[in-house]
Order: sequence, then structure tokens, then C-alpha cells
Amino acid sequence: MSEPLVSRRSATAIAHPNIALAKYWGKREGGGNVPAVPSLSVTLAGMSTTTKVSFDATLVDDELVLNGVVQAPDARTKVRASQLLDRVRAAAGPELHTSRARIVSTNDFPTASGLASSASGFAALALASVRAAGLDWSAEQVADLARRSSASAARSVFGGFVELDGGPTSDGAARAVAGPKSLDLRVIVCVTTEAEKATSSTDGMGTTQANSPYYAAWVADAPESHSLMRAALLAGDFTRVGELAERSALAMHACAMAAGIVYVTGATLAALDEVRAMRASGLATYATIDAGPHLKCLVRASELAAARARLERVPGVLRLIEATPGDGARLVTPQGAPS
Amino acid sequence: MSEPLVSRRSATAIAHPNIALAKYWGKREGGGNVPAVPSLSVTLAGMSTTTKVSFDATLVDDELVLNGVVQAPDARTKVRASQLLDRVRAAAGPELHTSRARIVSTNDFPTASGLASSASGFAALALASVRAAGLDWSAEQVADLARRSSASAARSVFGGFVELDGGPTSDGAARAVAGPKSLDLRVIVCVTTEAEKATSSTDGMGTTQANSPYYAAWVADAPESHSLMRAALLAGDFTRVGELAERSALAMHACAMAAGIVYVTGATLAALDEVRAMRASGLATYATIDAGPHLKCLVRASELAAARARLERVPGVLRLIEATPGDGARLVTPQGAPS
Repeated sequence: MSEPLVSRRSATAIAHPNIALAKYWGKREGGGNVPAVPSLSVTLAGMSTTTKVSFDATLVDDELVLNGVVQAPDARTKVRASQLLDRVRAAAGPELHTSRARIVSTNDFPTASGLASSASGFAALALASVRAAGLDWSAEQVADLARRSSASAARSVFGGFVELDGGPTSDGAARAVAGPKSLDLRVIVCVTTEAEKATSSTDGMGTTQANSPYYAAWVADAPESHSLMRAALLAGDFTRVGELAERSALAMHACAMAAGIVYVTGATLAALDEVRAMRASGLATYATIDAGPHLKCLVRASELAAARARLERVPGVLRLIEATPGDGARLVTPQGAPS
Repeated sequence: MSEPLVSRRSATAIAHPNIALAKYWGKREGGGNVPAVPSLSVTLAGMSTTTKVSFDATLVDDELVLNGVVQAPDARTKVRASQLLDRVRAAAGPELHTSRARIVSTNDFPTASGLASSASGFAALALASVRAAGLDWSAEQVADLARRSSASAARSVFGGFVELDGGPTSDGAARAVAGPKSLDLRVIVCVTTEAEKATSSTDGMGTTQANSPYYAAWVADAPESHSLMRAALLAGDFTRVGELAERSALAMHACAMAAGIVYVTGATLAALDEVRAMRASGLATYATIDAGPHLKCLVRASELAAARARLERVPGVLRLIEATPGDGARLVTPQGAPS
């Protein structure tokens, strides 16, 4: 009796985190995990999540091994991963409907700390799951699947500069708007902690939507900021992209702060001061900050070394990660294994 | 020939800073230095400005000695002080119209650092100038004069809990709404720097009004916050006063941050974290922050010592100043001199 093929179905995908240059914060009403406003990001080579999904009919539950640690069955990330797998199982052939899967996922950068590990993680998981299940989905379909688990993950499915729709009538589609080399951009990630953040993005957004006196103004303002960012990017205007990115980041953090949600720390503010001091001294550096304490400095390639030298001296900055606009999620072939 | 009386006309006043529990930020259109929204403050015994004004017909220009240092004729604070004196001279008898004055003002706490030294300073200056000029003005009139130089100074003219009107049709009047003993309140000022702040309140407000995407929402939201604060205060509800104060402070700082104006530092955020951690552990502590890096912790008298013990261990907190609700601006009689 032959072993069913399904028990050996597996695929491995790699994906990078992304940073939003024009940010979203908050979800629109009506389900589907669609953002309340559009966003525009850059996918970052230099940090990666690698995820292998193996459907295995002998398993009694999905398993998630994250950075070498088996996650508890009711751990938040494991539950979210199972929900993604359920969508894949429902779309796959009947032989997979009851099959559980083993997920082995590893980040080469801090996890759940505001470095968009959920973006790279769910993008890699979505692609690996879809391919392991034998589904021949387009990148747009993979992005739609990823978005339902982590909205920003939809952006990491694509490379370069990526747009994610949002708003009351949006379907939350993601698409690439410009290739990785379309703007002379380097990103210096100032890592300020290796710890997980106290408030997840999902919780922070929920509290902001419920309590911030500025949430309505944020939702009203962000689409225009997004349009301006898109135009600046397509015009190749680094300075304008930088100015708009810093403004978008501060508006997002301010909207959350007014609801009592504070992601920045002293090290973040010290790095922000340094970015502004560099700018005052003639280096074209701009800051963006996601839902965590790390600051990302936007800089041209020619000024990367000068900016690094100054940022690595900022108190509270533990180390720097250098990133460039990179590729979208893709399958990888384990060494020595058939593809 | 007798020396004119005017040459020896002088008066000395003392005033305390205040902190706004419901804050204003930004000025309404139309002049008069009237805030865009109403505010509610507590005047703080424990920090003082003492100011002596002496009209002297022999002077060729007004002179300001601030904390022992003679200010340059075109120094910003000296120019603002002269503008206040001009209003007093215009209202006084003709013998004062051309007389200049010497101002000697001393703070027993950091100046221009976000501890409301302009509030106590202009309140003391207004009262001393009016009395030195022989004007028999009411406290309301003194407050109106002080407000034209520094809006929050109008609040320091009164003791206890003080309201300052603001808004499109307001005349910017200040009044006491409850006496110093009407709420069981102590304030622990966490001093995080002895330096002057980089952005004055006036400049910070101007930039916020011009550039913050949240300024309109702030102006729309603040009057209700003020009404709720007034009601909580008059009900003697310490918890509600604290909750509303922390919310008002974060909304103000968020509104400014979205325009790129950041007054908080790592020490401020560390103290904020500690205030919230104390609250989570059962101590009823709340935070407020003015336009500077110092955090003020609101606490009941019975929990003052416990809160002090924890705040003095916060990294970046240089020292604590303890303050209680105090009296308004008043004349002082120099030791050994006739009143």
C-alpha cells in the first residue's frame, strides 16, 4: 500500500519584512482585515524569514516551530498560523482538508519587536502553504491570503515599492508600484532592543481606533499623504519621499500616543534627534518608525557610511542593520533536495 | 527741589508656576494672546518666582536681571517684559509714561525648561508692575495683563484650581474655580534637565497650528475635555481628574509631535512608564507633561512617599520637586522695609 502523497507535501519560502513609507494604522469596518487607509512600503533585503510548511496526515494538530521553539497550541502566533492554513486547506483538494501541517519558521532578526517580523512571517507562510498545498495561485492571491492574517504581510509578497489598498470600499489588494532599483534608497535599522514589544500592532490599532481623539483626522489625512508619497516615489524625488515618510511616521505615532499607546523609547527619540541633526548638517537623512522602538533611517547610498558612523554612536542603539530595497516572497529549494 | 516720587516707586511680587490639568495649545485668531481652547490648572506652591519692579526716571531703557544675569536689550524675555511695562505705563499717570523700570526676577527652579517659569514670571511681573505704578487693579485685570505676555501666566495670578477661557469668542478671562484644599492632590515634579528647552512654547504652538494634521481635532476635542475636568474637580474625584489630565497631556504632545515638535525625552518616557507601572500595582498615580521634558506625577497625599521612592529611581530623573496646590500671585514686603 503506497503512502499518500499528501503526507510529504512541503514547500519552503523566504520573505523579507517591509517598512511603510506612507503608513496605515487601523482597520476598516466590515472584516477581511482590510486597512482603513492605503499604504506604501518598501520591501527590505537584509532581513529574512524562512518558512517551511509540510502537510502531514499523521499530525493531530498544526505545529509551529518559531526560531527553534515549539509554540504552545494556544499561542497567539500559532493560532493565527492555523487560521491561514485553514483557508489554504479549504481551497485545496479534499485530500488536504483534514491534514495538519508542521511549520518551521526562522527569522534572522528580532521577532515581534516592531521590525515587521509578522509581515515577512505571514508572507513566507502564505506562499509556502499555498505551494505545499499544490495551489497555483497568483502573487495577488497569495497577498490576499497573507493580508487576512497580517495586513502588512500582503506588501512583503511583492518586491521593491509596494502599495496596499485600504479604505471603506477597498478590497485590500496589494501590488508592486516600482522596482527595487527605482529609488536610490538605503535603510539603516537602528535596533534598540532585542525584546518583544509590550503592545502588539493589532492591540495598539484597536486601542487607537477606540480611544484616540485623532483617529478620524488620521483616516481623513492619510490617503492624501499616500498619494503624495506615490507621486514623489514615481518622480524619483528622494527628498520628498523622506519628508513625507517622516511626517507619516510621526502622525501615526502621535495618533496612537493620544490613545495612551507609546511605542517609542528614549533610544528611539535619541536616534530621531540624530537623524534631524544630520539633516541640519547637510546629510539627507529621514526617519521612519513602525509600531516598535526601532528607528529606520532613510538615506542615499552615497551617504550611507556617513550616516552609519553617526547612528552607531547614539546611546541606546544596540546595533545597526543595513537594508536595501529587495525582492518579494519566493520559494527556496533546500540544498540537496529536489525542487 | 524735591525728587519726583516716581523715581522710587517699586513693588515686589511672588508667584508660583502652574500646571494645566486640562491643557491649552495654540492661540485663537484675532490677537490678544487668547488661547484657542479653555484650560484648567493648579497653581503650585513649592516653586516660586520673586520679581521686583522699580520705576526709575533716570533709566534710559528698561532693565531685566533674570536669575542674577542682566539680559541684553534685545533678548526675547526682556522685550516681552518691556511690552508688559508699556501697557502698564499707558494705563498709569502721566508721570510714568516715559519712565523706564528695573526688573529683578529670580526663580528657585529651572528657567525656560518646561516648568512654567514664564507663567510664574509674568504673573509676578504683572502684579509688581501694576502695584509699582500705583494702579489699583483687580486680580482679573492683572490676569488680563499677564495673559497678553504669556497666556498661562493669567492662571498663576490666582491660587488653587484656575480656569482660563479660550476659544473663538472668548476674552481670555481667568478665574479661580476651587480653592487649594478642594482636592487631595500632591504633585511630584520629575526634573529631567536643568537646561532650557530647544523649542519655546510659543514657537511650538505656531508650528503645531501650521503643520499638525491633528490641530483641528485638538481644538474640537479640548473644550469637552475641559468641561469633564471641571466637573471631576468640583466632584472631588481624584481618579477622574488624574485620568483626564493624563489624556489631555498625551493629546497635546501628540498634536505637536505630528507637526515634528517633540518635547519629551527618554527620561520623560521612562517616568511615564513608571507612573503607569505604579498605577498597575495599585498606586493612584497619573502623569501630566507640559511643553518640556519634565514629567509631573499627580498623587494623593497619603501615597506621596511611596510614589517618590519609585520615581527617584527612574533613570534620567535628576531630582524631584514636591508641590502642593498653592496661592496666587501676591505682594511681598522686603525684610526690614516699609510695606
